[in-house]
Amino acid sequence: MLESMFCPIGVAVIGVGRKEGNVGHEIFDNIREAGFQNRFFAVNPKTEEIHGEKVYPSIKDIPYPVELAVVVVPSKLVPQVMEEAGEKGVKAAVIISAGFKETGIEGARLEKQVIDIAERYGIRVLGPNCLGVADTGCGLNATFAKETPYRGEIAMMSQSGALLTAILDWAKAERIGFSKIISLGNKADISEIDLLKTLKEDNQSKVICAYIEGITRGRDFMMVAEDVSKKKPIIAIKSGGTDAGARAVSSHTGTLAGSEQAYNSAFKQSGIIRAGSVEDLFDYAVGFAYQPLPKGRNVAIMTNAGGPGIMATDACERYGVSLAAFEKETIDALREVLPPAAGLYNPVDVLGDAKAERYRKAMEIVLADENVHSMVVILTPQAMTEIDKTAKIIVEMSRTFPEKLIYACYMGRADVSSGIKILTENRVPNYYYPERAVATLATVLSYAEYIHRGRVTYERFAVKKRRVREIFDETLKLGRRNLPDIQASQVADAYGIRIARCVLAKDVNEAIRIGGGLGFPLALKVVSPDILHKSDVGGIAIGVRDEVELGVMFNRIIDNVRRFMPQATIWGICLQEMITGARETIIGMSRDPQFGPLILFGLGGIYVEVLKDVSFRIAPVPDQEARKMVTEIQSYALLRGTRGQPGVDIDAIVDTVMRVSQLAMDFPEIVEMDINPFMALEKGKGGIAADVRITIGGK
Amino acid sequence: MLESMFCPIGVAVIGVGRKEGNVGHEIFDNIREAGFQNRFFAVNPKTEEIHGEKVYPSIKDIPYPVELAVVVVPSKLVPQVMEEAGEKGVKAAVIISAGFKETGIEGARLEKQVIDIAERYGIRVLGPNCLGVADTGCGLNATFAKETPYRGEIAMMSQSGALLTAILDWAKAERIGFSKIISLGNKADISEIDLLKTLKEDNQSKVICAYIEGITRGRDFMMVAEDVSKKKPIIAIKSGGTDAGARAVSSHTGTLAGSEQAYNSAFKQSGIIRAGSVEDLFDYAVGFAYQPLPKGRNVAIMTNAGGPGIMATDACERYGVSLAAFEKETIDALREVLPPAAGLYNPVDVLGDAKAERYRKAMEIVLADENVHSMVVILTPQAMTEIDKTAKIIVEMSRTFPEKLIYACYMGRADVSSGIKILTENRVPNYYYPERAVATLATVLSYAEYIHRGRVTYERFAVKKRRVREIFDETLKLGRRNLPDIQASQVADAYGIRIARCVLAKDVNEAIRIGGGLGFPLALKVVSPDILHKSDVGGIAIGVRDEVELGVMFNRIIDNVRRFMPQATIWGICLQEMITGARETIIGMSRDPQFGPLILFGLGGIYVEVLKDVSFRIAPVPDQEARKMVTEIQSYALLRGTRGQPGVDIDAIVDTVMRVSQLAMDFPEIVEMDINPFMALEKGKGGIAADVRITIGGK
Repeated sequence: MLESMFCPIGVAVIGVGRKEGNVGHEIFDNIREAGFQNRFFAVNPKTEEIHGEKVYPSIKDIPYPVELAVVVVPSKLVPQVMEEAGEKGVKAAVIISAGFKETGIEGARLEKQVIDIAERYGIRVLGPNCLGVADTGCGLNATFAKETPYRGEIAMMSQSGALLTAILDWAKAERIGFSKIISLGNKADISEIDLLKTLKEDNQSKVICAYIEGITRGRDFMMVAEDVSKKKPIIAIKSGGTDAGARAVSSHTGTLAGSEQAYNSAFKQSGIIRAGSVEDLFDYAVGFAYQPLPKGRNVAIMTNAGGPGIMATDACERYGVSLAAFEKETIDALREVLPPAAGLYNPVDVLGDAKAERYRKAMEIVLADENVHSMVVILTPQAMTEIDKTAKIIVEMSRTFPEKLIYACYMGRADVSSGIKILTENRVPNYYYPERAVATLATVLSYAEYIHRGRVTYERFAVKKRRVREIFDETLKLGRRNLPDIQASQVADAYGIRIARCVLAKDVNEAIRIGGGLGFPLALKVVSPDILHKSDVGGIAIGVRDEVELGVMFNRIIDNVRRFMPQATIWGICLQEMITGARETIIGMSRDPQFGPLILFGLGGIYVEVLKDVSFRIAPVPDQEARKMVTEIQSYALLRGTRGQPGVDIDAIVDTVMRVSQLAMDFPEIVEMDINPFMALEKGKGGIAADVRITIGGK
Repeated sequence: MLESMFCPIGVAVIGVGRKEGNVGHEIFDNIREAGFQNRFFAVNPKTEEIHGEKVYPSIKDIPYPVELAVVVVPSKLVPQVMEEAGEKGVKAAVIISAGFKETGIEGARLEKQVIDIAERYGIRVLGPNCLGVADTGCGLNATFAKETPYRGEIAMMSQSGALLTAILDWAKAERIGFSKIISLGNKADISEIDLLKTLKEDNQSKVICAYIEGITRGRDFMMVAEDVSKKKPIIAIKSGGTDAGARAVSSHTGTLAGSEQAYNSAFKQSGIIRAGSVEDLFDYAVGFAYQPLPKGRNVAIMTNAGGPGIMATDACERYGVSLAAFEKETIDALREVLPPAAGLYNPVDVLGDAKAERYRKAMEIVLADENVHSMVVILTPQAMTEIDKTAKIIVEMSRTFPEKLIYACYMGRADVSSGIKILTENRVPNYYYPERAVATLATVLSYAEYIHRGRVTYERFAVKKRRVREIFDETLKLGRRNLPDIQASQVADAYGIRIARCVLAKDVNEAIRIGGGLGFPLALKVVSPDILHKSDVGGIAIGVRDEVELGVMFNRIIDNVRRFMPQATIWGICLQEMITGARETIIGMSRDPQFGPLILFGLGGIYVEVLKDVSFRIAPVPDQEARKMVTEIQSYALLRGTRGQPGVDIDAIVDTVMRVSQLAMDFPEIVEMDINPFMALEKGKGGIAADVRITIGGK
């Protein structure tokens, strides 16, 4: 799709100055030195030659086909250059020049102008304001970075050009190669979404890495990422703060749902692996690129020193990686080849005086055990240690057992470096610390789980959409944004969510008449379009036991509300059956500007307010994810049932989460929604929405 | 104290073989090559010379004084060698030889024999089974490691010799120096405790690092560590598993209190900084060794790239480091010297084209701001970046502002390495990733807080110790280990802990008579020396409202218990006032084999059982720490009071925690204790121990 950017028939660098240090000059030199396989040209009306080669006054003067223009002229000249490139028939442009959207309104206008021209000619644009692009497959380095990357299997895209320069510098020292390097710049045209689609089909790229500061088309991004991550892992750093406090929110869900939660959910749901730092990014990228996905969860640790073996074991516990239990034959065979003091169980301690051959024998035995799916081999540089020879044997074993994942952990940096070179050049990743090897393995295992999960299914419930439409229209007609209780409950009801029976009583007499019919005990709640937090104005009474109490409490509530909010319209008081013996939960929704409806689940009351023990997903929430939302909260044991207490109806919660998800998808005008509490009854008995709150915006 | 080991008048290596690769030979060569400042000698009856120098048949034949013997002979010859060393007047011996306790009973016997000899002659012993010792101050490298460490301010001791070799290899590549390297081996004599005491007084050592697998004299270790860490930071890796499941426990506290919790508490209470990995250890060690403790918590970030600046800011939020707010003058001054597009607020973005001078100007301005206590300077290697020159300026700034902590973050490893060399050689630590710089800073800040905390005070309550003695003696006389309810409550009462009034009724009639006097509602609990978990056998009734219910419930409890535990002795049923409107907490104690009484606090019920939201301290618990135990739990907000709900009596909890601590210290025979629930009443109203359970062992 973007082949003409990565591997163009001809490249023209427009704006190649004569002096070294000039950015255009640097890019031209980089293209020369990286050994680009096709033709490339320099353009500059003020220069005649560079390195003995002709410089063309305009791209149009180049007597060969040109697919890619790399633009390095001052920003105000870019429109003209783009026109010429269009006339030349260029298919893609990398605009290095700064001075666009990032500088303010004028720059944004200029950027728009450039994109308009590009669209007119059908030119795809990378940037502006970027470091450039590199493709090691056809030897293209159209960046002004100091380094030309080694060839490898990792595709790297970044919203920060400077970070790319740092990443290239690291990669050089660690001998990590890349398939493609892409600096996104202002993303005026080409975005992460385009690149994900292209890189999915790129056979050179086994892993896709991204540094992301912000995403605009969140939902498209998720859809594409989900599709791509089924085929190859996407690892992303998402930096940049929380927007806490930036928004005006009126619901519990809104308070808890920030952009951080949205990104986390979006990444998780679309299979993107989130790296906490560049260090993690490298660790994971190499771990994925060089070794296979293991067939199971069990790891064997092998070491020539006890301490690091313990560290690795500790890390396995911390990251939830399971230590393989060996077959009896494995242990017997190890006993034959290892000295008496060796550790035969997992971790296998081949002892400090182990030479390469002892590693080989032990590895052969352990890797042949079918309970072992992966291995971390630790080496400390002791007196007898054969650093390079052992590395060669690890490489050999990795080839003999291609379906087993093998990570090395050569501990040290000076003497061991020759061994590390052998390992990494032969596609065995080395981690300097056992913890990092295990953390990477854990990440790989969780990705393997993600891609092996079944097809996600979205339940589509039969609902009364038109009824909801009417309620919203009525509310908007009245100029209101917060739905009154009864209407909010009706919305939930229309979407098949069981709601607490609630009957409106306009005065005491009506209340007493209705109350008798409903049966005691009852809960009373004031109904007013102006009151969002009923308990704050004394608008609620619970456990009302008989008609006398009903009369007293009815009047007290009216008095309270009149006192606290004299201007509030009171429509009456709603009488509700009391739900007892249920567990209070909260199911809510808040709309994220990037990703749309973010659905929340948690236990009600203090679990939400104090412990913030909640889970999130972006809607639409598939069945499997709705279920995970329930099981992944810390206090899940309270729902499942503990110490002989029966569990609650998890299915009813899952069902309601999905109905809220469908409602949120069907009505983009819903800004926030809380079902709080959603009373989860005993297993098999369902659940009841006791209080529903909905805020809508414009359509 | 151990000067004769680190900087001896004369050193004899006993067991120097002629061939290279022989361990004694390697050590002798290491001593020669490291340039030891005093005299050193080789001993071996079978060799006459090495490198042209005389080899002595016995240490006794050396015609010069010898303070340190390095012993590398086979284990069975060690006793004889030690005798000779003793006769020679040696003060310390480093026993490299293996074949002692680590090999089994025979070896342990041999080790004991060696130590007996050493004690007879007053020789201090390092090892056996160790890598040796090095002191860069007087050029001693009596190890068989391949590397001689650079000179530096970090003292490193390790229970794993192999890990030391790896650490030396890392340090070499990163140019990190050490004051001393000590391999502890089997710790037959010299332990961490001795070394901490020595290193405290060692002016060359600014930071003490330790790799620890296990500690024997836990309480002594804590006392010494607390004393030392006031003077200089101790950073420790504690590896090695949890002992979960290894012990039989009968209390809630016992279930939650593992050796991991004990180590964590012990480290925290004695000011030891726990490193999660060797990577962290290095980061912290250098961060402490090279830069001052900052005078406050506010950091300034400076960067030549936006992305890494955001990463650093994110990390500050994650690790709780506060970003400095600059004075208006600072911002004005920055505006003068930086280009218009620069970021003037914190983080300061000097932009991608910043040369060294721009860094200097900006650093000078920001470091002069008194709101800034520390700085992280980020550099990415972009086209215009002056890597080395900027490093020199950072070093210069670090000297100009010696009271401000400065960490560099040169991102990359290849091109930036010359700059990193300049930085680290001049005592500005470099971190490859912004997150690691910030994490280290957070660690330094928390150490600074620890040493600036006030003197801890231990409250000593007036208690009835003799009464407790009597109760325990009675219980033991009966051959019991679990105290019956009433006795357990009496113990708590004797230590000034308010207990729920409980009156024993032997039969229904007595119960009804007593019940009327106490007043309803009541709680009933079976009293039996055989029943630990009363609720599991239906031995409890709560909310008993009147005499009729009392009669019914009394009989039902007796029936339940007879059915579930027919063999249990029933002493009667205890009648207790019901405590309402209180918050259930748990205060408990469990005895750790290394560190003694481990005190637990948490919220009762599901908070303990499901969420495991508890805090621990090793007794004796000082006032300040008892208070922190309460405030550091996740659900603390429930105690402090939220949303208009009043808080509970924190002082009463703190008081009870300290009383339990005192009780546990006074009576080593208490194995486990639970006050569960401890009912925390409203602020100012105290708290009540509603159920006390105590298990004792032999004295």
